[in-house]
Amino acid sequence: MSWDCLIHKALVLTLEDVAAPLCGGWVAVKDGQIAAVGPDLGSQALPPAREYLDAQGGMVLPGLVNTHCHAAMVWFRGLADDLPLKNWLHDVIFPAEAGWLDEEKVYWGTLLAAAELIRGGVTTVADSYFFAAAARRALADAGLRAVCAQGVVDFPAPGVPDPKDNLRVAREFLDSGAGLPARLTSTVFCHSPYTCCAETLQAAKDLTRRRGVPFFLHLSETREEVAEVQRRTGLSPVAYLDGLGVLDELTVAVHAVWLTPEEQDLLARRGVKVSHCPESNLKLAAGVAPVPQLLSRGVAVGLGTDGAASNNNLDLWGEMSLAARLHKVWQGDPTVLPAARVVALATREGARVLGLGDRLGTLTPGAEADLIVLAPAPPHLTPMYDPFSHLVYTARAGDVEHVMVGGRWLMRGRRLTTLNWGEIARRVRSGSPELAAFCHKLRPRA
Amino acid sequence: MSWDCLIHKALVLTLEDVAAPLCGGWVAVKDGQIAAVGPDLGSQALPPAREYLDAQGGMVLPGLVNTHCHAAMVWFRGLADDLPLKNWLHDVIFPAEAGWLDEEKVYWGTLLAAAELIRGGVTTVADSYFFAAAARRALADAGLRAVCAQGVVDFPAPGVPDPKDNLRVAREFLDSGAGLPARLTSTVFCHSPYTCCAETLQAAKDLTRRRGVPFFLHLSETREEVAEVQRRTGLSPVAYLDGLGVLDELTVAVHAVWLTPEEQDLLARRGVKVSHCPESNLKLAAGVAPVPQLLSRGVAVGLGTDGAASNNNLDLWGEMSLAARLHKVWQGDPTVLPAARVVALATREGARVLGLGDRLGTLTPGAEADLIVLAPAPPHLTPMYDPFSHLVYTARAGDVEHVMVGGRWLMRGRRLTTLNWGEIARRVRSGSPELAAFCHKLRPRA
Repeated sequence: MSWDCLIHKALVLTLEDVAAPLCGGWVAVKDGQIAAVGPDLGSQALPPAREYLDAQGGMVLPGLVNTHCHAAMVWFRGLADDLPLKNWLHDVIFPAEAGWLDEEKVYWGTLLAAAELIRGGVTTVADSYFFAAAARRALADAGLRAVCAQGVVDFPAPGVPDPKDNLRVAREFLDSGAGLPARLTSTVFCHSPYTCCAETLQAAKDLTRRRGVPFFLHLSETREEVAEVQRRTGLSPVAYLDGLGVLDELTVAVHAVWLTPEEQDLLARRGVKVSHCPESNLKLAAGVAPVPQLLSRGVAVGLGTDGAASNNNLDLWGEMSLAARLHKVWQGDPTVLPAARVVALATREGARVLGLGDRLGTLTPGAEADLIVLAPAPPHLTPMYDPFSHLVYTARAGDVEHVMVGGRWLMRGRRLTTLNWGEIARRVRSGSPELAAFCHKLRPRA
Repeated sequence: MSWDCLIHKALVLTLEDVAAPLCGGWVAVKDGQIAAVGPDLGSQALPPAREYLDAQGGMVLPGLVNTHCHAAMVWFRGLADDLPLKNWLHDVIFPAEAGWLDEEKVYWGTLLAAAELIRGGVTTVADSYFFAAAARRALADAGLRAVCAQGVVDFPAPGVPDPKDNLRVAREFLDSGAGLPARLTSTVFCHSPYTCCAETLQAAKDLTRRRGVPFFLHLSETREEVAEVQRRTGLSPVAYLDGLGVLDELTVAVHAVWLTPEEQDLLARRGVKVSHCPESNLKLAAGVAPVPQLLSRGVAVGLGTDGAASNNNLDLWGEMSLAARLHKVWQGDPTVLPAARVVALATREGARVLGLGDRLGTLTPGAEADLIVLAPAPPHLTPMYDPFSHLVYTARAGDVEHVMVGGRWLMRGRRLTTLNWGEIARRVRSGSPELAAFCHKLRPRA
């Protein structure tokens, strides 16, 4: 018997509960899955394998799981920053999406996003956007594992000029996912309870429930939207959604910033999952999600980058660093969210949030071989006392050397193996001046 | 006439007030200074120069200025995290410093820090620590520009077992700086108003005032220390220090988190400078400094990383990203601290904080040739609409390709040119297990 790949001389973090780091350890991959994991081989000969990777002491851990992204919005990266939220959304983002985006632009934008995600060690991304079939095709071409969701709103949207078609488009997207590789999940993202009516929310949730896939929606990102839902329905957003029957274990609430303790309890009781996007929440001055409180109630929380229009990167290392620090100062307690917990949010817990916790998020024999290998000991990771501390407080996206999804290398020695970066860059650089000109016409410059 | 170095085909950000980015621009260096800066040369022949660097469209900007660091504390990186502040400081950091550090360890630790600083585009660092002569020697060997401060406290400290010697040691350090290259400033860092008595603070400030160099001290980092100063003196920390006469234009207040509006006014009136260290402040749950309020009062504010024991990195890109985001959510206003302002804090304003604003921080003819060149358009910096937005919200330390200080390359193509990284790594990796064992004896493990 021979393994497909043996990664050895690694500092292996399996992310299994209570597992200690394996110094000088190894990870074996076969048929796209983790075959075995072990400690230092000492002077033993290496077991037979088709490929060997000497990690030279670098860390090996499960690939990162980005639980919320609007990948193709990399087109808008840095196009409109530091603006009041309403101006940003209504004067720039919505008009640019409606007037400029098309299916091809979503495809190439998503490939650009994929390049950034892979270079930052993300192996699974939950992408919620319009022209979701084009996005799914791009993520498939990149070799990423992905949960792709077609966006649904009750106003004209990219690819859905008449909102009456929004559920039909979503259903067709779901149906067209049949027969695709198992690493691609197709589902629906309802933008929010203030942009989708009760019927839309219920019908969209129904579509996903029947297929057993996660249902995404933005929940209580800003104080203003909470007030609006309350004014319209007389209920808190969570109580309103619960009344519609759309909250269950396959619902992922994104942002979840403004929640009362009662709403937190209700989310916990329903088994709702939460995607926490701190960099976006801070940049838009939305607020700080009650993550320690949700975790103490047993709610599964993962990390997300949100889209590059509001972040402006797709880098989960920044989210880890920020999540670990932000909640400490917010709670006035430096023991909140210790490093190992934060690494779990970005891996194992993220997989749970996406309903993939039985297949992903730990280096356990039988799990999908989605893993990353970090560079061995650059200056900022030296010395090494606690790998979890380094991952959260000082490692960066650029430290990721190799990325594997389902046993296939997507990056090897910082070189992307599935993507033609030259072609992606050429497409994006030729399209972006056109978008800038389009937006220039939209609003008077300061 | 020929220049020493011409960097061309660059996106040049001079950081001069109101200067627009120069697309396809160039920067000429001669005799260690910026000789000239210009826009796209079009089809013109390149002017004569001994060395040419084609930036391939990458950004060129002034080197970053780290206004507060305890460089040698990289030894403690990740050794004790996520602890209550008092346990962290009194059970681990202080005993480890007192019982384990020596002059040689400070030298090698500071070299390790220098490697990280240079790789992250820092060209000037303000380092405050013990065995400051060893730290200064390391920073000199690395080729960095540095403001080196000998630490002063009224209890036994590394290299100063009897606190009665603290001012003598500081004076000798200052005196020994005479005759060193102009890029090295020698000065004093009083740890804080709660660890130094009035006489120590005044005598230390006197030493620096006579030499016209900046005087550093930690100010109002935590609520507890503010209460302690108030209890001991009946005054707010700022009023107390003002009464001692130690607040003036050459005083740098580090952290400055817990300030009343009256204290902010007083700092502004005295021309005191502020070093803002948000990653450290969050990680220790110290609090959030009133930076927008200080800026609106005209106080000069720079960014600092603090030491790696409390951060745990020396990466100013993280500080930029966090400062830009944090104050937005803290103020509930997404227009606070726009990107261009934050880049200025990390460069031009940082130089002002250190009293070097006339020589550093902008690419102005006659200024020191301290500059960095970024990699041209990696995926996460694509597309490009606004370079300042990219620098703050998505660029990372690893994007820095080349680093120059005073006309000399410290890093070229990610390769360190002044440091022997193999030797530094060997020294640190042989010392760190010894430190871990020392600390293991200090406290029972969980």
